[in-house]
Amino acid sequence: MVVKSQIKLIKSLQQKKYRNQHSLFVVEGVKTVQELLKSNIVDHQIYSTDLSLFGADEESVRLISEKELRQMSNLKTPNKVLGVFETPEQEPINFSDWVVALDDVSDPGNLGTIIRLCDWFGIRHLLCSKNTVDCYNPKVLQATMGSIARVNVFYDDLFQALENSKVSVYGTFMEAKKIYRQNLPTSGILVMGNEANGISKEIEQLCKERISIPHFGKSSTESLNVATATAIFLNEIRRG
Amino acid sequence: MVVKSQIKLIKSLQQKKYRNQHSLFVVEGVKTVQELLKSNIVDHQIYSTDLSLFGADEESVRLISEKELRQMSNLKTPNKVLGVFETPEQEPINFSDWVVALDDVSDPGNLGTIIRLCDWFGIRHLLCSKNTVDCYNPKVLQATMGSIARVNVFYDDLFQALENSKVSVYGTFMEAKKIYRQNLPTSGILVMGNEANGISKEIEQLCKERISIPHFGKSSTESLNVATATAIFLNEIRRG
Repeated sequence: MVVKSQIKLIKSLQQKKYRNQHSLFVVEGVKTVQELLKSNIVDHQIYSTDLSLFGADEESVRLISEKELRQMSNLKTPNKVLGVFETPEQEPINFSDWVVALDDVSDPGNLGTIIRLCDWFGIRHLLCSKNTVDCYNPKVLQATMGSIARVNVFYDDLFQALENSKVSVYGTFMEAKKIYRQNLPTSGILVMGNEANGISKEIEQLCKERISIPHFGKSSTESLNVATATAIFLNEIRRG
Repeated sequence: MVVKSQIKLIKSLQQKKYRNQHSLFVVEGVKTVQELLKSNIVDHQIYSTDLSLFGADEESVRLISEKELRQMSNLKTPNKVLGVFETPEQEPINFSDWVVALDDVSDPGNLGTIIRLCDWFGIRHLLCSKNTVDCYNPKVLQATMGSIARVNVFYDDLFQALENSKVSVYGTFMEAKKIYRQNLPTSGILVMGNEANGISKEIEQLCKERISIPHFGKSSTESLNVATATAIFLNEIRRG
């Protein structure tokens, strides 16, 4: 049986304030929890309605009822497993390879997708402005599909961090040089802006290089979504 | 004042069954409604809490109260305007340029993002299997940001449509030739699969060309999301 205070703790971790206070976060779903158990992230407690999903060496898994899972879960249809993990220490950004920097990305699905993209393209470090949505937000974690275990997400004063970085800062804009014409270096920082406002004026000053994705539709076309634009820029960086 | 029967009709249009029955669909938000008013899609009735958002020649706009908008809206925070439009006739697919084909894409956000991407990359025709989520679903329309007005979304028996198309069919798979090495023709069909299962066995038979996006992360990396993968493939097709 799971005691009420545990359920209360787990529910409270849906809020950033309590995640920070306890240095814990919650992940749901078989696949994502298994990915995190294989990683360096330390598990605090795993709850599952089906113990056969885990190897015998996973001592921290605790059998719970469907009803208990529903009480803890943030999902409409909970998926067998809920894991509580310790928030890892943020690692300082290593600028020897390409780094993605986010200037106030606010949508959890977008951040989660960008973390998954970084993982796919072998980008180890993601630098986020302090106002970027928290990467331990349940909706972000859902969208990362376990990639959070392999990407170091570091929150920092973005202006200071870019200014101190000593590598080329590439800002992405609607009107700028086409990415296809660029001869990209082997390291640099790719800055992506907020969904509604793009890159802020303050950060724009530091973007010595300005790049864009050409568009091929009619002029009335909306901008690209920040996550799909990140996909295209990372592909351009890696395809060589 | 808006009569109850109108509110009931509008609410019912959240369901595909009633959208089909009335040949009407609902769009919310200033930007998206304005985009649709500029297009060939015929407006049935526009409701707004602020008439100044529209030109004097928009005769179909009707002033409503915030309370009435809340009663009609599908959003947590309704955004000033709600438009009811007539579902346009589906246009047959024209295979003279690249066409995107979706094999049972089920997530509304993904379909909406793919429609927006087609618009950006000047892809006029999107061929969808009958089990692909309905493009007039409110969540799809939300994600298209108005692009639905510029992309022809055609639902058809995908197997038959591909078999009859007479152009090269490119299937996207996890393991296949890297897209970078391909010499792509000026027209073709790009087939994207379902979120969980990829391209079905039946459709796979018709994919004479098999392509993939290389990954640069560790082997345990998840696949890419279907919308971000579509972004990368379309960029590769258009960048030349």
